[in-house]
Amino acid sequence: MTTLLTNIGELTTNDGPALHDAAVLIDGDLISWVGPAVQAPSADEIVDAGGRAVIPGFVDSHSHLVFGGDRAAEFEARMAGQKYAAGGIRSTVAATRTATDDELRARLRGFIEELQAQGTTTVEIKSGYGLSVDDEARLVRIAAEVTPEVTFLGAHVVPADYADRSDEYVDLVTGPMLDVCAPHAKWIDVFCETGAFTVEQSRRVLEAGIARGLAPRMHASQLGPGEGVRLAVELGAASVDHGTYLTDDDVYALAASDTVLTLLPGVEFSTRQPYPDARRLIDAGVTVALACDTNPGSSFTSSMPFCIAVAVRDMGMTPTEAVWAATAGGAAALRRDDVGVIAPGKRADLVLLKAPTHIHLAYRPGVPLVERVWKDGVAVS
Amino acid sequence: MTTLLTNIGELTTNDGPALHDAAVLIDGDLISWVGPAVQAPSADEIVDAGGRAVIPGFVDSHSHLVFGGDRAAEFEARMAGQKYAAGGIRSTVAATRTATDDELRARLRGFIEELQAQGTTTVEIKSGYGLSVDDEARLVRIAAEVTPEVTFLGAHVVPADYADRSDEYVDLVTGPMLDVCAPHAKWIDVFCETGAFTVEQSRRVLEAGIARGLAPRMHASQLGPGEGVRLAVELGAASVDHGTYLTDDDVYALAASDTVLTLLPGVEFSTRQPYPDARRLIDAGVTVALACDTNPGSSFTSSMPFCIAVAVRDMGMTPTEAVWAATAGGAAALRRDDVGVIAPGKRADLVLLKAPTHIHLAYRPGVPLVERVWKDGVAVS
Repeated sequence: MTTLLTNIGELTTNDGPALHDAAVLIDGDLISWVGPAVQAPSADEIVDAGGRAVIPGFVDSHSHLVFGGDRAAEFEARMAGQKYAAGGIRSTVAATRTATDDELRARLRGFIEELQAQGTTTVEIKSGYGLSVDDEARLVRIAAEVTPEVTFLGAHVVPADYADRSDEYVDLVTGPMLDVCAPHAKWIDVFCETGAFTVEQSRRVLEAGIARGLAPRMHASQLGPGEGVRLAVELGAASVDHGTYLTDDDVYALAASDTVLTLLPGVEFSTRQPYPDARRLIDAGVTVALACDTNPGSSFTSSMPFCIAVAVRDMGMTPTEAVWAATAGGAAALRRDDVGVIAPGKRADLVLLKAPTHIHLAYRPGVPLVERVWKDGVAVS
Repeated sequence: MTTLLTNIGELTTNDGPALHDAAVLIDGDLISWVGPAVQAPSADEIVDAGGRAVIPGFVDSHSHLVFGGDRAAEFEARMAGQKYAAGGIRSTVAATRTATDDELRARLRGFIEELQAQGTTTVEIKSGYGLSVDDEARLVRIAAEVTPEVTFLGAHVVPADYADRSDEYVDLVTGPMLDVCAPHAKWIDVFCETGAFTVEQSRRVLEAGIARGLAPRMHASQLGPGEGVRLAVELGAASVDHGTYLTDDDVYALAASDTVLTLLPGVEFSTRQPYPDARRLIDAGVTVALACDTNPGSSFTSSMPFCIAVAVRDMGMTPTEAVWAATAGGAAALRRDDVGVIAPGKRADLVLLKAPTHIHLAYRPGVPLVERVWKDGVAVS
């Protein structure tokens, strides 16, 4: 089965400059040809893009989609002046522990549909609202049902039952919890931050994961500056995420590394934190990704277009850089070379926009501009 | 034909406190009953809200939806550092003048569908991209095909062919242009701002419109402080819109008046202007509305949920205040008492959200949360 998507007014490939009056041939689950519409090969099915824009499916490299409950009341209180604190995670842990597998699964499937309708075709999902051996195990298992990009984040926060015994909790995470979670996960992650885990504890967590064949990534510098970014770079993390507070040394270390800095504009938006300066990072040579960080505490958006709009408005990215960061940047943050790009041999993950150019994703904030989405060559929305 | 919308988890009526486990009976194009679900009368059709939230349809009291072309390149340049200037309106005037009536009509119908899908059931539409007698006349005529809330805004900006002859242009607006536009319009508006019209010219425009039976409203204090707000209050305007730069005297004048201050968060978002402080206004007793100001220059969003999220994040409104401002506030800005409220006898304009509470409109920015929309009792989305 082949599908030709033709009459594309603007095609963002992330494989060279944008093409105009272009076409893409989908063969099964892969892209098999990209070029000028007038030279397009024949196909079983023809889809007319009507002169509108096509971009790669969004690669959302940071989310927390397996949880129970929500924290709307906490959000409302924060907007009335209460400060965001990492400890709020514990209320979601309580709601998650009491939810059944099927409840978590139904919620997760709802989120996946919601993401796809907004153009996201690859999503990373973290555990981290279980914080016990059994609960973390079921979260990674449930996440693995919907994505290969599963991250074990037992070290999300120290659970209430381990308060003042954080090193013992790290023993649990790096021992029995890792034992049961590693077979279902690809990534190991830790929240390296005051109020969560120290840099020494973070090193223990990531090194234990690496020893079990997991690849490292990290939450760091969300609430204040710290040593997390440099540890992530030292350990060869694929990505360090947040980076709300970066020192010049952090920026130099990132620029000299293969570690992506993943910005999460929804977090600054929803916690009223200051926005990090993406311009400074890009100009320094850092590879920047954008992700939603969908979670019930600090960022409950699941909209990559919204994150693009905020990154352009408040982080100094151009619309083109922001779309790259939300597609190819996300792929780099997951060390994937088969997504985030429209080229022969890559996954047929494509988004047709209700707009003539990708610029509209920033120019028309909040407007649902996703017309149609293909994942692995199948129209999913 | 009656429809009972029942099992509503949270019903925002704007007619007293929110109701829980509620139901609404629609009879034809009106609401005929509101109360606890267990006491609901029978109906021809039953719609189960599944415990989710219902709010009044959004009343977007400020838009410019009849125009040709777009200004994506200008937006991109602005995000790279170029400052917003009112003169950019002229490029849309050129594109609008060359568009046919049917092209403008098709574009407008697309916007109306887009707005309805996002929960907007009442929209005000301004002329102002014609700026000649014939072009303004066709804009108000086309707008009147889709809404009764038509505003004649011949005094949007001084067109290029009247540069340095702005008083002559005001003669045209208040004379021949008003003659042909007034029969199709309900409102008279003027952009009172440096670079557009002086306060003296603005008075001439509004007084001429009032003399022809139009009711006044005004754009003021978008780009800097000025005397526009006080003039609007003096003339009994239903609303003065923008208010990015308000003096204490402006706030006192508004608070002591029946004039609504309509905030347009999309404008500050898309022009990187500072956000006005809605908290200060509400605490001073000003009636505040929220609107999108959908236009190709300064705010191309058409998403009332997006405006709510920004108003909460950056203007200091609570989620409840923001939803009120986007519904009942918009109705007040249009001097309408039949919309923006869910009560017996009012228009059956309702939005079912994919969320348990209206708070999610701010808590989940950018996410399409509108599940179903009724306008005049008919499901339109």
